[in-house]
Amino acid sequence: MFALSNGHIGLRGNLDEGEPHGLQGTYLNAFYEQRPLPYAESAYGNPEAGETVVNVTDGKVIRLLVEDEPFDVRYGDLRSHERVLDLRAGVLRRQAEWVSPTGRAVRVRSTRLVSLTQRAVAAVSFEVEPLDGPTRVVLQSELVANEPAAASHGDPRGAAALSSPLAPELSLAHDDGRALLMHVTRASGLRVAAAMDHVLDAPAELATSTESEHDLARFTVSARLGQGERLRLVKLFAYGWSGRRSGPAMRDQVEAALAEARQTGWDGLVAEQREHLDDFWERSDVELDGDAEIQQAVRFALFNVLQAGARSEQRAIPAKGLTGPGYDGHAFWDTESFVLPVLTYTAPGAAADALCWRQSTLDTARERAQQLGLRGAAFPWRTISGQECSGYWPAGTAAFHVSADIADAVVRYQDVTGDEAFARDTGLELLVETARLWRSLGHHDGHGRFRIDGVTGPDEYSALADNNVYTNLMAQRNLHAAADAVEAHPHPARALGVDDEESASWRDAAEAVFVPYDESLGVHQQSEGFTEHEPWDFEATSEEEYPLLLHFPYFELYRRQVVKQADLVLALFLRGDAFSAEHKARDFAYYEALTVRDSSLSACTQAVVAAEVGQLELAYEYLGEAALMDLEDLEHNTRDGVHIASLAGAWLAVVAGFGGLRDHDGQLSFAPRLPSSLSRLEFRLGYRGRRLTVEVGHESASYALRAGEPLEIRHHGEPASVGTDGPIRLRIPPAPDRKRPAQPPGRPPRNRLRRPG
Amino acid sequence: MFALSNGHIGLRGNLDEGEPHGLQGTYLNAFYEQRPLPYAESAYGNPEAGETVVNVTDGKVIRLLVEDEPFDVRYGDLRSHERVLDLRAGVLRRQAEWVSPTGRAVRVRSTRLVSLTQRAVAAVSFEVEPLDGPTRVVLQSELVANEPAAASHGDPRGAAALSSPLAPELSLAHDDGRALLMHVTRASGLRVAAAMDHVLDAPAELATSTESEHDLARFTVSARLGQGERLRLVKLFAYGWSGRRSGPAMRDQVEAALAEARQTGWDGLVAEQREHLDDFWERSDVELDGDAEIQQAVRFALFNVLQAGARSEQRAIPAKGLTGPGYDGHAFWDTESFVLPVLTYTAPGAAADALCWRQSTLDTARERAQQLGLRGAAFPWRTISGQECSGYWPAGTAAFHVSADIADAVVRYQDVTGDEAFARDTGLELLVETARLWRSLGHHDGHGRFRIDGVTGPDEYSALADNNVYTNLMAQRNLHAAADAVEAHPHPARALGVDDEESASWRDAAEAVFVPYDESLGVHQQSEGFTEHEPWDFEATSEEEYPLLLHFPYFELYRRQVVKQADLVLALFLRGDAFSAEHKARDFAYYEALTVRDSSLSACTQAVVAAEVGQLELAYEYLGEAALMDLEDLEHNTRDGVHIASLAGAWLAVVAGFGGLRDHDGQLSFAPRLPSSLSRLEFRLGYRGRRLTVEVGHESASYALRAGEPLEIRHHGEPASVGTDGPIRLRIPPAPDRKRPAQPPGRPPRNRLRRPG
Repeated sequence: MFALSNGHIGLRGNLDEGEPHGLQGTYLNAFYEQRPLPYAESAYGNPEAGETVVNVTDGKVIRLLVEDEPFDVRYGDLRSHERVLDLRAGVLRRQAEWVSPTGRAVRVRSTRLVSLTQRAVAAVSFEVEPLDGPTRVVLQSELVANEPAAASHGDPRGAAALSSPLAPELSLAHDDGRALLMHVTRASGLRVAAAMDHVLDAPAELATSTESEHDLARFTVSARLGQGERLRLVKLFAYGWSGRRSGPAMRDQVEAALAEARQTGWDGLVAEQREHLDDFWERSDVELDGDAEIQQAVRFALFNVLQAGARSEQRAIPAKGLTGPGYDGHAFWDTESFVLPVLTYTAPGAAADALCWRQSTLDTARERAQQLGLRGAAFPWRTISGQECSGYWPAGTAAFHVSADIADAVVRYQDVTGDEAFARDTGLELLVETARLWRSLGHHDGHGRFRIDGVTGPDEYSALADNNVYTNLMAQRNLHAAADAVEAHPHPARALGVDDEESASWRDAAEAVFVPYDESLGVHQQSEGFTEHEPWDFEATSEEEYPLLLHFPYFELYRRQVVKQADLVLALFLRGDAFSAEHKARDFAYYEALTVRDSSLSACTQAVVAAEVGQLELAYEYLGEAALMDLEDLEHNTRDGVHIASLAGAWLAVVAGFGGLRDHDGQLSFAPRLPSSLSRLEFRLGYRGRRLTVEVGHESASYALRAGEPLEIRHHGEPASVGTDGPIRLRIPPAPDRKRPAQPPGRPPRNRLRRPG
Repeated sequence: MFALSNGHIGLRGNLDEGEPHGLQGTYLNAFYEQRPLPYAESAYGNPEAGETVVNVTDGKVIRLLVEDEPFDVRYGDLRSHERVLDLRAGVLRRQAEWVSPTGRAVRVRSTRLVSLTQRAVAAVSFEVEPLDGPTRVVLQSELVANEPAAASHGDPRGAAALSSPLAPELSLAHDDGRALLMHVTRASGLRVAAAMDHVLDAPAELATSTESEHDLARFTVSARLGQGERLRLVKLFAYGWSGRRSGPAMRDQVEAALAEARQTGWDGLVAEQREHLDDFWERSDVELDGDAEIQQAVRFALFNVLQAGARSEQRAIPAKGLTGPGYDGHAFWDTESFVLPVLTYTAPGAAADALCWRQSTLDTARERAQQLGLRGAAFPWRTISGQECSGYWPAGTAAFHVSADIADAVVRYQDVTGDEAFARDTGLELLVETARLWRSLGHHDGHGRFRIDGVTGPDEYSALADNNVYTNLMAQRNLHAAADAVEAHPHPARALGVDDEESASWRDAAEAVFVPYDESLGVHQQSEGFTEHEPWDFEATSEEEYPLLLHFPYFELYRRQVVKQADLVLALFLRGDAFSAEHKARDFAYYEALTVRDSSLSACTQAVVAAEVGQLELAYEYLGEAALMDLEDLEHNTRDGVHIASLAGAWLAVVAGFGGLRDHDGQLSFAPRLPSSLSRLEFRLGYRGRRLTVEVGHESASYALRAGEPLEIRHHGEPASVGTDGPIRLRIPPAPDRKRPAQPPGRPPRNRLRRPG
């Protein structure tokens, strides 16, 4: 939870002194080791190599000895200890008062940052002060490689444990406190350099030394401090990695980054950080009156989304950001479907970077499609480098919707930013290659319907079903968008080999997409036949048997009506333009009774659709679940890293849920409505150079534009125009009166203890 | 192809001198090693341990040195070399004339047998004779453990290569030519003892010695032979294994077996073997006039089915018998569906033994059902010991039809033999526990239909589909049969916990079983929705891309209309009582165009149904394919062992195909009809103590009973009675005139060069 990241470097919230720790972790985006993927029975097309994020050289470590006694909160007397993650300043602050086992009291203060402005750099300011009499202290500031790996805990959502993944190449130490370690991974052949430098602010009596060996570099400071005297060490550390650049080039790169950081200085780094964040909050803050806990959680969520995406710069945004090794550090479809919508409206450059990364992996995705006998590009289910790393194809490769999710993110980004260069140079190619995939995945049946058979939708408790509604409707959007893009960019489209017949065939397929519907129940089928399956026996399932995937075989889960995470309901949100209001309400109620939320990706979507169908209190409860997923460790696996998509989902629950934001066909529309516990909501969006602020109360909502041309929006279905000449205030119609739908027994949304508003 | 087995011991057809060899192999039924099954992504319910058949101590080896030159057919001049598998005598004969590189000519004769009457014993008679002048010869008769394993060839249908699976425990040698090796497997902890003894018949000048070490025992004979003098060595060897008995007990066991064999003597063993086979052929021979190649192939098939089943004695009958390590030596559903029907009519004791083995694994099958959240017994997809060993659940565990196939074999065995003790003590429990499985696997939908969703049928190019017709209809039979068995055996049924409500619920479910049908095409759907899937693009598939599973991902295979092996068509055969003649013809034609026969289990079923719908020439071609599967190595993997089920299928193609044998509800019926190339067919069946001979010509068929009460049969739908008072001759109606259905391009049945009749 205290992890810091800029999307390029990630530092887990380990204590400065390294111990005790749950899991040590320092990550660099896209720095991974390869490992073989084993299969009990081999089969054509199974990926043979997996990728696992590596815990790289740890630069966070600053050990303190007080009269030879290591500062360790497990021993002695910890009088006070507070850590504060400052979301405005972008730093992690710590203050402790500790009495050593031999009775020496000290105060320790540290501040840590991972720079959002100098992406290769992190820094720590560490200060120690004796509290009762002269004291000898020693500081050891380190770079540590190949920290012992924690044992794997057997949960398939965890990570492969790598033992000593880094082979040493170079270690250097200078007398002035500079040191460097360089390593290379054994299988993937990636080279990483980590370097540190130090600035001391101390009383006179002082000795320092610097040393280095293969997996350790150490700067040692010994001092004798009088009472009230402070020893302050500023540690600057920098990382660089490459699969291509030589050792000497890597060394120069990190030493240059350090030189710049030293030039900027600690105060300068802190000031830049604050400036960067002031701008971000100005563009994206969400204010929620009436629930301080959720207010804090939503800001924590936005901060983490920013940390994950800010400086990824044409690398993937992993499911855990750079906060932990969960899911082996892989990126999934939820980056496009949950994280990029937030970034698109609040930090669009980061969204563009993430999509450019997808474009950079197109050759790999085209090869994968070809291997599978398909056309276009088949993006991987889980990956770091772009290679498919899923070792269980029914819930991996078969979940082709990832390609439509990427296309959807492309369309949204283009609509929201109007970025023409991106549309021509990146969006077009992504849309064309994904449309080709869909056209080859689907076929017309005897009734003229365009079917997509045998695929897996978002719900991981179903697999290999025909005509998954979410997949079919997202493919429909993808096919239409590709045809539109070809029309808008005829020359580059021709260069991609698209002719009129091909784009017409996309439109034809899109028009004919089959959406299965159960006439007798009057609801859509998640996939064809789904509503005829036996419902899960929820009554017979005890609380300890969740998440179901750890206690029941996929066989049983796949063949029953039980939903891990919003699937048809996600279609109701993302393809809301394809459903009537009446159907949304009926479908939502039907699937609500089947959805167990064993995935962190569910509550936020349920919040959005619950709000739309008028179930505002239910939506509010789901918002709580999405927003507190990590702060309250609701899935008991935040140790593996925070759930970036669920955090992004907290923003979606607020903005698309209670704000009712939708952007189908590039049309910004809102249908704001607040639950009773919230008295006011305000959120900000960037839209084609404009800055829109939406303020929502119980009776009305006001829309204000702070810059740019007037903006046409819809408010509860009615067109309205917002200009810079002052906010417009519009009435909110009452919510439809519907019965609150039931959840599976034992699976209602988490019931928070409400606090006074 | 020259492998010998009695169902307990299996010897591959390796040359006496051991080299050259494709693959060395000596197997003991149910003697296996465990190995971990790895998964790229773990999941609840995945089997963690696999089982692999072990190449045990090799007793076949007799090396010959001619004037210090090893007899090796790759060197020197091999003037003649013939090996004859004698199906009447049950021995493998060999004769060779060889001139050594140094110019010494010898004649070598050997005869090998695996005793059908003394199941622990095998024997070789080896004879060498100099052809031109006095010659020094040395014989080395050996037991060899831990022969080097052949490298795995990457085909998923092969076997895991085990290196040195046997840990030595004891080795003994006696001066008189007796020796023994005892080993134990490292993981499964099974102990195996192999012992040998020798009888020499030789001219006077002779020296012998016996020695042993961990993995080798050797009896050496040196002799100086004059021209025309013969040295003859009879080698007797015996095997025993156990997971429970001690080393001393095992030693006693094999030495006792050897003592008995020595007492019987070579000639006695040969005579017993002949007697056993005379009885078998008397009960089971099939005569086919007009096609000598198929005549031979069908007898080869029957011989191998007998070898696989004869002395299995409450162990599994593996897919390869004991002829090779293919499929890791596992048994599958095809034992019950293809092999047991043949044994039931020709060697019913072996069929009963095989079903008693299933019963002995019921505890394991019940545990597996419980682990999967089901009731009753879930039999494994593939196994040696009874534990599920399938490491890919969509084509393993999900293929639940294996349990209905076992029930079907139980019903057939009981109907054909009238074995009341079996029905009460074995059949009832198997039927009850499998019916419980089906009742918990299926459910009634809103239309009152009993559905079985998300399972895999026989066709391995589809998986996890709803309402597989084969599965549903076989489950229906299973449920009915269980209810009938409970009615017939009320007391033992109560002891199994069955009450009236439970058996009524089986009948209710059976009555309501859902059989999906495509109204617009007028054909049944292999599984619900199957006929709406995109047909495989056969035109774009080259010949080198078969078998498809080695060149296309399961993803693509599962979602298309392409059939690896008869599935709906197998239902037309085994549940022919559930289809009209018209539907059989239409369904057969539809699926014929989609079936690529990438499995050896397909051609025989297609032959049977083709014959039934009047496609006699097509049936004849499929018979050729089934019968020659191994003799012509049509699937290029006979090196891994012969295809026992396909061999059994050759009998089915003849007897159920051209003989038209069906046994629905215990009613024996025939609808014989010959293809033009065959002038006459005669086959024999045992039925409730009677012996029935059926002789088929083009115009008529005659039925003769050689013993017992008169038998009511049906001939082309008309009732008839056969007594011991002489054969009855009945007219064969002309076949319906239908268009020959097409196969996928490039996949017609194999076109044999016809030989003169």
